[in-house]
Amino acid sequence: MPRYRDLTHTARPSDAPRVVDPKNPIRTTDPGALQMLDMIKDKNIETVYDRVVAQQPQCAFGYKGICCRICIAGPCRVKKDDGPGSRGICGASAYTIVSRNIVRMIAGGAASHSEHARHVLHTAHALVDGHAGDYEIKSPEKLRKLAQKLGVETLDREDKDILRDVVEIGYADFGRYQDRPLAFLDSFMTEGRRRKFQHTNIMPRNIDGSITELIAQTAMGVDSDPVNIIFGGLKSALADLGGEYIGTNLSDVLFGIPQPIVSEANLGVIDPKMVNIAVHGHNPVLSEMVVAAARAMKADAEKAGAEGVNIVGICCTGNELLMREGVYLATSSASQEMAILTGALDAMVVDIQCIYPAVQTLAECYHTKVVTTEAIMKVPSAQHIAFNTTSAMDDAKKLIRIAIEAYKNRDPKKISIPNEKHKLVAGFSVEALTEIFSKINPERPISVLTNAILSGQIKGVALMAGCNNLKRAQDESHNIVLKELVKNDVFVISTGCSSGAFAKFGLMSPSAVDTYAGEGLKSFIQTLEAANPQLATGLPLVFHVGSCVDNSRAVDLAVAMANELGVDIPKVPFVASAPEAMHEKAVAIGSWCVTMGLPTHVGSLPPVEGSDLVYGITTQIAHDVFGGNFIFEVDPVLGASKLIDALEYRTWKLGIHKQTAEKNETALAQGW
Amino acid sequence: MPRYRDLTHTARPSDAPRVVDPKNPIRTTDPGALQMLDMIKDKNIETVYDRVVAQQPQCAFGYKGICCRICIAGPCRVKKDDGPGSRGICGASAYTIVSRNIVRMIAGGAASHSEHARHVLHTAHALVDGHAGDYEIKSPEKLRKLAQKLGVETLDREDKDILRDVVEIGYADFGRYQDRPLAFLDSFMTEGRRRKFQHTNIMPRNIDGSITELIAQTAMGVDSDPVNIIFGGLKSALADLGGEYIGTNLSDVLFGIPQPIVSEANLGVIDPKMVNIAVHGHNPVLSEMVVAAARAMKADAEKAGAEGVNIVGICCTGNELLMREGVYLATSSASQEMAILTGALDAMVVDIQCIYPAVQTLAECYHTKVVTTEAIMKVPSAQHIAFNTTSAMDDAKKLIRIAIEAYKNRDPKKISIPNEKHKLVAGFSVEALTEIFSKINPERPISVLTNAILSGQIKGVALMAGCNNLKRAQDESHNIVLKELVKNDVFVISTGCSSGAFAKFGLMSPSAVDTYAGEGLKSFIQTLEAANPQLATGLPLVFHVGSCVDNSRAVDLAVAMANELGVDIPKVPFVASAPEAMHEKAVAIGSWCVTMGLPTHVGSLPPVEGSDLVYGITTQIAHDVFGGNFIFEVDPVLGASKLIDALEYRTWKLGIHKQTAEKNETALAQGW
Repeated sequence: MPRYRDLTHTARPSDAPRVVDPKNPIRTTDPGALQMLDMIKDKNIETVYDRVVAQQPQCAFGYKGICCRICIAGPCRVKKDDGPGSRGICGASAYTIVSRNIVRMIAGGAASHSEHARHVLHTAHALVDGHAGDYEIKSPEKLRKLAQKLGVETLDREDKDILRDVVEIGYADFGRYQDRPLAFLDSFMTEGRRRKFQHTNIMPRNIDGSITELIAQTAMGVDSDPVNIIFGGLKSALADLGGEYIGTNLSDVLFGIPQPIVSEANLGVIDPKMVNIAVHGHNPVLSEMVVAAARAMKADAEKAGAEGVNIVGICCTGNELLMREGVYLATSSASQEMAILTGALDAMVVDIQCIYPAVQTLAECYHTKVVTTEAIMKVPSAQHIAFNTTSAMDDAKKLIRIAIEAYKNRDPKKISIPNEKHKLVAGFSVEALTEIFSKINPERPISVLTNAILSGQIKGVALMAGCNNLKRAQDESHNIVLKELVKNDVFVISTGCSSGAFAKFGLMSPSAVDTYAGEGLKSFIQTLEAANPQLATGLPLVFHVGSCVDNSRAVDLAVAMANELGVDIPKVPFVASAPEAMHEKAVAIGSWCVTMGLPTHVGSLPPVEGSDLVYGITTQIAHDVFGGNFIFEVDPVLGASKLIDALEYRTWKLGIHKQTAEKNETALAQGW
Repeated sequence: MPRYRDLTHTARPSDAPRVVDPKNPIRTTDPGALQMLDMIKDKNIETVYDRVVAQQPQCAFGYKGICCRICIAGPCRVKKDDGPGSRGICGASAYTIVSRNIVRMIAGGAASHSEHARHVLHTAHALVDGHAGDYEIKSPEKLRKLAQKLGVETLDREDKDILRDVVEIGYADFGRYQDRPLAFLDSFMTEGRRRKFQHTNIMPRNIDGSITELIAQTAMGVDSDPVNIIFGGLKSALADLGGEYIGTNLSDVLFGIPQPIVSEANLGVIDPKMVNIAVHGHNPVLSEMVVAAARAMKADAEKAGAEGVNIVGICCTGNELLMREGVYLATSSASQEMAILTGALDAMVVDIQCIYPAVQTLAECYHTKVVTTEAIMKVPSAQHIAFNTTSAMDDAKKLIRIAIEAYKNRDPKKISIPNEKHKLVAGFSVEALTEIFSKINPERPISVLTNAILSGQIKGVALMAGCNNLKRAQDESHNIVLKELVKNDVFVISTGCSSGAFAKFGLMSPSAVDTYAGEGLKSFIQTLEAANPQLATGLPLVFHVGSCVDNSRAVDLAVAMANELGVDIPKVPFVASAPEAMHEKAVAIGSWCVTMGLPTHVGSLPPVEGSDLVYGITTQIAHDVFGGNFIFEVDPVLGASKLIDALEYRTWKLGIHKQTAEKNETALAQGW
């Protein structure tokens, strides 16, 4: 009997402390970061772990979402339960203020992902136009698969011609004014989701226009209806997913489909004998070139006295390169400053998103050069090298040269690299997973996964995603949720800094399976391994599917499972969790997870507690409409438990559904 | 000798109180509103004037712009001058936080104006496609002028074909990906501004993409360089101006170019014997139809016992209809609730922007029906009638019917209409002004204005624009700034709720000229009147150029003056003032005013005081780059004085420039 009978018990988070305890300045559990902090403990060096404590107590109005700064008559705050102080100056109630604030975060997320996607799209465009000679179509296979999905003719056509048409659709998806759905979203959905999005009027027709419309909808004196505002927000959330589809798919076309690959993670990957360059941010367009340039410039590094150039990744640029090139992952978002503190990082090359402005302040105490590369991302006093797709390799070489020059200025007294690093296996695109499954069932590879669920061997699939949020100690919630899930036989895929956490702690290695996986999951993974002797490595405890734009891969898997099971996604035993959500992108991702029909756990509360109505919509009403809902729960053990409940409920329902269908089939067959 | 020798004295606002004095609950100077407040003083009715007092004291962090809620690790506040508490958790300094917050307000403004423009564009599109039979091309003259500016062929072509091409360019301006400038901006600029925008890399190529890019640029971990962030903001500000150009010009094409027209303003225009419908918001697409439907449905109103249907305007929908149809202006933004309190308003039909959610709460105490009409603008428990351009007249009639039904439920005991109304003259499109000037100089009409400046008869031109902001009493600052300017012989044009203030107080009437204009301005206006005997009315003290999207008309005038004077806009004696700025749109407008090269007074401080650097950029550095700058000054007398300084300085410089040019010409003529 499943515990997950109704939603009421998920409606409110537990009373677990959800804000920083200022008396406990240790805000990380990452062993690499802890070693660094120990090293600097007598030095007067400020890091994020100090700043988060200095920010306590944080403003309760802002935390709950009941502070409105949308016009300059304010700021207004919901100060009282009734009377004039219970509304903004214009009369906006708590539910209006909370919903406006939260959907503007969705807009922020959608803008972020789509800006990333636009850059990849521009690169593909330059490539087909012959202006990006350093790039190539690395995966014609992916291109053709993508083109077919989008309805682009592939027969007897050159790759570049196909790509030209795909790029055209991508551009249309940014700016289409005709009333047609976003192609890069619509083409990937189940039929059920497609209908649901049309019926609820949240199917975007373009990305940029949806975001602009949402910002306009939430301006002063426009929409005050929280339901309408939230549906507007969901449209932008789907635009976010569309942007992610463009980003992921075209990156695969240009840089290859990720395949299982072995690498290492945590600060110990920084090599004192090498010129060390951290690539940090999100976009593979630049960093893929940096990797190629580094390989080409080994001799230059040797001339400077080093053994070569060691590219290490931070955050999602790290994930992109780890997935496709096996580049070491130095660290994840909250501990990004730690890489500089090693004293052996010669350059930190950044593109966009999640880059602390603090890295430059810190780098000034070391020889490390922080270099920004994109026009919309500069850091005061950091060097800026404009990166152009048209001169990509030359630009990348410039960056390597800067690092080699900096290497010569290293202060040996300041070098202190934690001895922490862990083996990991990454590279699990849906194509790679399908290939693994196909060794068991070549005709219906995804049934290997769904049958394992229907048979009770595993409980379902969980996507673990998202950032670090130092309201709780870094990585702790990621790791606890993961351990709870795998112990309960949940097949876990992960992205972004959730992957970062697992990689850094050694939880993404094959050896972790024995230690942490429940019997069912362990046997499932072993079955996969046994069927795939061609793999040079065992399979990991948790399957890294990519960077944060690659959450689209999770949707691909959920869609494939739904189609395999013959149901829509809300019936698929598939859940999502962002135990340490922080960025606006996480708000956007979480929101489309819910519209996709996924129970979605968030371990760091977004600013919705200021309105019971909005809270109720996100945690309960959403379930009635979309079949997915938010589960806000700061206690990671409880959060995982609520996810397991949701999976068990779906598996149980699915069992009934299957039995009913079988009974009906039997009935039909018998001519009843 | 001009007083305006350098910018330093404008750099800091005076110490005049800039926040609400909670001991003085009288937050308006509007005589109509004051009468209403007196009427309800013993009743337990909450209005905006109560809520603004209840919000005191307002949060100083938010007020100064040093509260960051861009990710959910926060809220972060700049609490200290140095150390970890002086930065956000990510390390963002005050200048980063302030600049991100303020440019996101620009994005909000640009999104608002462009959403309005998009609606007008869709209507024009439906018209050419034959799906909007209730609309027509009312001004083929404007269409052809616009088409020529945009490079669309007009010779031997049908109006609809021309409009189709213009609409196509409009759509491209929303979503163009090619690296070409925004057509609806580029075509209207001086050559100097065009070059300046290219050189400073702020020329947008499209509207929606610029906004999305800016939101992405200001997301957590992206740009932390305040200068780069602000330039990104200026790009969106120019996208805002592009949107305004689309809105104004296509509205003129569909609804006619405003011409001088006589009307009345303030709550006394609500007629107890009529079915009274207030149209409120910004968009003429719906409200123009409501006016036509009202005329057609006089008999229905009579059947219900009324003498007819009386459409009255509020806010910028009011301004749109006043400009083109002479519709009465009931009131402006801050006093919008007062219209309901008269007890004789049968319906308030709203479109988008500046509509207090409070109107519905209040309407529930009366018989008044609040009806929302746009998909992105709903108000909980208000009726929603979806307005479609394809069935515009039918939809408008539905709205009138709702009002007629409501009229039957009026409670006579609750009716109390202030006896306050004033004659006004409005309708001064640039075309109308040019026509007036042309009666003096048909070849070079704008020289009539510029010569009056060069001769010292008038000091220059000021655009007065923007909202109400109850940090000071409603309308007081508008009126004081106006009186100071006209006393000092400044030719004043106005838009939005600045126009609303003047109209409500009788300052937009010809009779105000004698009372308030300085001798020079008075003689200038008299000269214009003498040359234009065909006008059925005298000319007003201040020239109403339209709603807030019609600030684009002010730019048209400034461009025409620059071209006439043979200089770029920063040399033209032209200033702008938003004494009571409130909306994000005002932030966008003010920002493009500065990039256009206008000294721009703002009487309600935007959240920039938290960073000396950002404050300095907006008030000083901007002047070095663009020739325009913000003048933040809460004291309206001082604000006006600083504007007059700026005008005198420009006139003085222009005199020198003219003399030098003449000397050079003489020299050239003499063969030197």
